[in-house]
Amino acid sequence: MIKAGIVGYGNLGRGVTLAVDKAPDMECVGIFTRRNPETITPAGDFPVYSMDKLADFKGQIDVLLLCGGSATDLPKNTANLLKDFNTVDSFDTHAKIPEYYQSLEKVAKENGTLSAISIGWDPGLFSIARMLFGAVLPDGKDYTFWGKGVSQGHSDAIRRINGVKNAIQYTIPKEQALASVRAGENPSLTTREKHLRECFVAIDEGADKNEIEKQIKEMPNYFADYDTIVNFVSEEEVRAMQQKLSHGGFVFRSGNTTDENAHLLELSLKLDSNPEFTGSVLTAYGRAVAKLSKEGKSGVVTVFDVPLKYLSPMSEEELRAHLL
Amino acid sequence: MIKAGIVGYGNLGRGVTLAVDKAPDMECVGIFTRRNPETITPAGDFPVYSMDKLADFKGQIDVLLLCGGSATDLPKNTANLLKDFNTVDSFDTHAKIPEYYQSLEKVAKENGTLSAISIGWDPGLFSIARMLFGAVLPDGKDYTFWGKGVSQGHSDAIRRINGVKNAIQYTIPKEQALASVRAGENPSLTTREKHLRECFVAIDEGADKNEIEKQIKEMPNYFADYDTIVNFVSEEEVRAMQQKLSHGGFVFRSGNTTDENAHLLELSLKLDSNPEFTGSVLTAYGRAVAKLSKEGKSGVVTVFDVPLKYLSPMSEEELRAHLL
Repeated sequence: MIKAGIVGYGNLGRGVTLAVDKAPDMECVGIFTRRNPETITPAGDFPVYSMDKLADFKGQIDVLLLCGGSATDLPKNTANLLKDFNTVDSFDTHAKIPEYYQSLEKVAKENGTLSAISIGWDPGLFSIARMLFGAVLPDGKDYTFWGKGVSQGHSDAIRRINGVKNAIQYTIPKEQALASVRAGENPSLTTREKHLRECFVAIDEGADKNEIEKQIKEMPNYFADYDTIVNFVSEEEVRAMQQKLSHGGFVFRSGNTTDENAHLLELSLKLDSNPEFTGSVLTAYGRAVAKLSKEGKSGVVTVFDVPLKYLSPMSEEELRAHLL
Repeated sequence: MIKAGIVGYGNLGRGVTLAVDKAPDMECVGIFTRRNPETITPAGDFPVYSMDKLADFKGQIDVLLLCGGSATDLPKNTANLLKDFNTVDSFDTHAKIPEYYQSLEKVAKENGTLSAISIGWDPGLFSIARMLFGAVLPDGKDYTFWGKGVSQGHSDAIRRINGVKNAIQYTIPKEQALASVRAGENPSLTTREKHLRECFVAIDEGADKNEIEKQIKEMPNYFADYDTIVNFVSEEEVRAMQQKLSHGGFVFRSGNTTDENAHLLELSLKLDSNPEFTGSVLTAYGRAVAKLSKEGKSGVVTVFDVPLKYLSPMSEEELRAHLL
């Protein structure tokens, strides 16, 4: 049995807990939290410890599944944890991945530990599709669409506007753009042509709707380059929408092997729960990290480095016989 | 530059030739054929040699891209070629893969060579999807659909019927089955419910249409378990259809992380030319085999064993910066 530890118990931590609970070859040694452990009732029958107890488990955990955020948690903590443990995380600030990789590679090599970074569905499964599709169809174009699903960053940005009580923002791929890509038209798409942004906003009594809508729609980087729909709703409606964490998206590659012959490759995901699915991917890579570390591998790996067989609880013989 | 040799120049050999010609980091040392080399005008500006010249190239070729068939060519020849060369092939008789693997593993290990087997889109990209999807969504069901595209085996079977001059058979996924899987209904589908078989048949003058149609529709293993449509057309029409080698298909995984939350993962391919796309996949794995062999790896590998980064001409740093 692979011994896993879960660090952090927010939405993603809960998703990872469910996934480890389902894995036939993994057990959870403990969930480690910065909150009071007694306030947490985990989704699986696993012990919950205070974060400062984690050091006592050195040598007893094959892999730590890190469920903190990319903005501060992971950049602040992963390097430190990697001194004593193998780790898997979902670091998803695309632009900062090379820097994050470098900062961890040194620590991992020095301590003989192994870290899988940027695991999930984007980065993660979508990265696999972009890389694999590009390698087998080099003369072509890539398209990644996200949604329909909640963008946490855009929701936060709306909440910072004066007079806004609560808000949620959905990123929605434009049907016309999807259709054009699927038809093999290889369109050049602007930001505005690819995605639509729909916002549901609860405001303070007496706040100026027109002014708030204008502030949202003209917000640089976040909304100015998009077609944005703003709906004013009650606080209860926003809160109800915040319970449903569905997401999804598409990766396409459209290209040619000759002038006459075109090909279209598509990966699509439709997810009822973004954190539960991401947690499930994290857990599969946790299995891979535990196995690779046992074989003596150390350093930092991404989805590009891990042979896929390591993700499965099946043996190589079973995989060849049943899934090839 | 990676030095590739191409063995066999049928449809697949032509596809591989086009792909090697496009690869920025590969060159083709030669195309090797059992036919008279002078009768072949290759799709790229590469030398063509008789098969018996291949032995002279020992030590000068990093990887052989084998373009023979799975019925006799590959089982007969791969082990022998593997004594002197690294190889990549598209062995696609699913039931015989474990046996084929075993027969090659010993030769490769003894000779320090590396062989990637069963490369293409099924087995190949579809195997990657089945394995990866199953690992990240363990509580779920798999569905593979093929088509619309030509089944060579079924076309051959029709041609063996008395009174048939020529024939082509298309495998077509049933829309209703696809829609049910996409709706997350997790249907249990019979063979008949998944695919339709449509045949275009040219017959001898005076041959009995009703009798031939009956023989096709009742043919065990090939057609009896399917809804089959038989169209009688002219020989010219069949021959025209045989020029177009389009194919494609779908891999789905539909499953749950909790009772409430379901997820749907889909890979789909739409290919204008099956052999050109398969040749392109073979070439990417040829790159991987050449690199892995240089690192000292020997034995037999499948798509489950090869880290994806090896398929790309990009460096690891570029991949992390641009595709992750």
